[in-house]
Amino acid sequence: MGQLGVDSPLRVGVAGLGTVAQALIALLRENSTRVSSQSGREIHVTHVASRSAKPDVDLGPAAFSTDIRSLVDRDIDVLVELIGGVDDAYDLICEGLRHDISVVTANKAVLAAHGNEILALASNRNCRVGFEASVAGGIPIINTLNTALASNQVKFVAGIINGTCNYILTAMDESGTTFNDALSDAQVKGYAEADPTFDIEGIDAAQKLAILAAMSFDTTIDLNGVHTEGISSIEVEDLRYARELGFRIKHLGIAEKNSHDLDTRVHLALVPESNLLSNVRGVDNAVIVGANAVENLMLVGPGAGGRATASAVLADIIEIANGSGAVPNISRSDSAYSSISDVSCPHYLYIPAADKPGVIATIGEVLGTHGVSIESVIQKHEATRINNGVPWVPVVIVTNSVLESNIESIVTELEGLEIVRGNIRRIRVVDF
Amino acid sequence: MGQLGVDSPLRVGVAGLGTVAQALIALLRENSTRVSSQSGREIHVTHVASRSAKPDVDLGPAAFSTDIRSLVDRDIDVLVELIGGVDDAYDLICEGLRHDISVVTANKAVLAAHGNEILALASNRNCRVGFEASVAGGIPIINTLNTALASNQVKFVAGIINGTCNYILTAMDESGTTFNDALSDAQVKGYAEADPTFDIEGIDAAQKLAILAAMSFDTTIDLNGVHTEGISSIEVEDLRYARELGFRIKHLGIAEKNSHDLDTRVHLALVPESNLLSNVRGVDNAVIVGANAVENLMLVGPGAGGRATASAVLADIIEIANGSGAVPNISRSDSAYSSISDVSCPHYLYIPAADKPGVIATIGEVLGTHGVSIESVIQKHEATRINNGVPWVPVVIVTNSVLESNIESIVTELEGLEIVRGNIRRIRVVDF
Repeated sequence: MGQLGVDSPLRVGVAGLGTVAQALIALLRENSTRVSSQSGREIHVTHVASRSAKPDVDLGPAAFSTDIRSLVDRDIDVLVELIGGVDDAYDLICEGLRHDISVVTANKAVLAAHGNEILALASNRNCRVGFEASVAGGIPIINTLNTALASNQVKFVAGIINGTCNYILTAMDESGTTFNDALSDAQVKGYAEADPTFDIEGIDAAQKLAILAAMSFDTTIDLNGVHTEGISSIEVEDLRYARELGFRIKHLGIAEKNSHDLDTRVHLALVPESNLLSNVRGVDNAVIVGANAVENLMLVGPGAGGRATASAVLADIIEIANGSGAVPNISRSDSAYSSISDVSCPHYLYIPAADKPGVIATIGEVLGTHGVSIESVIQKHEATRINNGVPWVPVVIVTNSVLESNIESIVTELEGLEIVRGNIRRIRVVDF
Repeated sequence: MGQLGVDSPLRVGVAGLGTVAQALIALLRENSTRVSSQSGREIHVTHVASRSAKPDVDLGPAAFSTDIRSLVDRDIDVLVELIGGVDDAYDLICEGLRHDISVVTANKAVLAAHGNEILALASNRNCRVGFEASVAGGIPIINTLNTALASNQVKFVAGIINGTCNYILTAMDESGTTFNDALSDAQVKGYAEADPTFDIEGIDAAQKLAILAAMSFDTTIDLNGVHTEGISSIEVEDLRYARELGFRIKHLGIAEKNSHDLDTRVHLALVPESNLLSNVRGVDNAVIVGANAVENLMLVGPGAGGRATASAVLADIIEIANGSGAVPNISRSDSAYSSISDVSCPHYLYIPAADKPGVIATIGEVLGTHGVSIESVIQKHEATRINNGVPWVPVVIVTNSVLESNIESIVTELEGLEIVRGNIRRIRVVDF
């Protein structure tokens, strides 16, 4: 919010011309008055490059090229990387920084893979790197960690950071749709890719969590340290039982500081109804940060979409324009990432069991010998189900807090019992 | 996040030594590593002044004085105003700015009363003014409006911005406590003042909303433009009926841009259960911003408390330390504030009515002659109540969207009917 006209216009080169890039160009036109007033100067997209031939988009006075690498040789102040992917994006970003051009990117994949090198290079060149759009789309979580929470020590960061998963889980929960039908519906609506692996197996969320964790705890980015599970194992019945027990099931990314280690994980979780996270529906994203001064702070908003993502990209550009974007802090420690087997939490167990008296007593006995107690149990009087000729009924249990390595042994032991008639589904229970 | 050690320490003078000031000093000590790394330099509280004698607080190396005005004559870079009130705070802030000292304040009252003059003076002196803590405590809404939403045109901003009211409404809703009992409980817990007028009559919320509206729409601060209603008229029965209709009742501040005008108002409202705002409980605050690029963005967190407020104060200080705090933009337009009578929304009506056939038909007829229809109605078969010898039963109605001036006439007309047996309670219905 400096005085307009003091500085010359900020010259921006945009690499890529997909949905986000087009939305960025449109937003700059649509909101130009506010953008200039907040930047203290004009922001001009002077160059646009895209590998495919120029599409039918009004680029205004910007020069167009199909040679993306040529951007770094132009007179630009900021390079906006929107080509996606890892290798080419990494090369382009580094090339820009080596030319002393600040970079803004929405690319979580390249940051999760090469973020440490990118931040170090930027710091060496005294350049700025903005990547607000790489995590949770339009939600300003990176900015919040760097500014509002600058005076806090973060205890944990957790959230719904994949809109596709949340859309599918919401549909299953609210309409009783099966996983496959909900996925197809998401694909039809454009919320899931034709190959949905990246989203539903938790890889996308893991990349975002790796970035979030590093920013929250001032550590290096370590994608390999993230324990990653997807959502494809879930059944509508789990969502129904969870509701009955006072929970919703969400796919979460969680990074938490233990006494020594940093624990980072992406998995399904039962969240109590009283926790606002459990009420975040559809493709929305939400992030909660627990910190030692503000306590819990939660941000909710669109996790994807051209305009929301472009808004975050433009916010980074405006920060660079008015000189407040941060040169990356490279004094990041390598965190000792803890293994998932060190995590302790209550567990939801869906146990296909024999329909006869004493079943719960037997299960309780096994849990008891491992020092685990039952917090809640649901066993309904219902018709026996048959699977491959084996009769069974579901028994649903929520345990007290138990170590991951312990619950794994317990599940194996239970599955070996004669009264257990199939695989047990296990979902962690979390609260903040 | 610059390189530590490049700049000399930032010297901070703190005026006032109450809860927030003490928490600020404690936080600076507790989180010094992160604060320095985010600021790029050390932050030292070098002077503290408070009208009362020095309390038993460890001020470290800071000099203490009971002469608050003396602070501006010291070698300080930032003056933190935490004395509260209006006149003395205003004088102190102006004096600081005239000495070219940047100011951070948590004082919504002084900003609501004199914010325009303060921002203009700061701009003239090229000083920074931070006031994140003045609205919604630990929630970084001012920063979000200035940075993440810098690329957006705001359409509306709305939220739960008074924790006392939300605590009382939550208690009434969840425990069926009467208003008076919930208020007493809030006073015992320290969530409400001995004289609660300021909070429960909506004045505190109106001050915050006036600041929020100005920051959202780049207009001047106009407290008098805010239509202000409190919560003391509510009955537990209203909360119960609202639930039955799929709503919760919240006390909201709302600023909305119409075609020409800015509509700012503070009042009770029915919010649909599906809206996250309706799930914000206890003393928490929450703000939703609707903007033309990100669509809806919501922030939830502690609206008060020493550490949360101090965290916001410290965030402003850190921004000033690393040079990214904004010099106020004085190109703010005077907004044409619209009158509440121009607002259109559905209404909840609680009507004490005669217990006889045809009552709803008669009420519906009156509404119909004003072009208003009934969306929902609840009339239960229950024992007739007696008030001052007059028998009645409650009829609860939700109308379709109707202009404020119209619903006022309707209520007056209904209250004149023989079948209406007392005052009608009316609550607006909102959704975002």
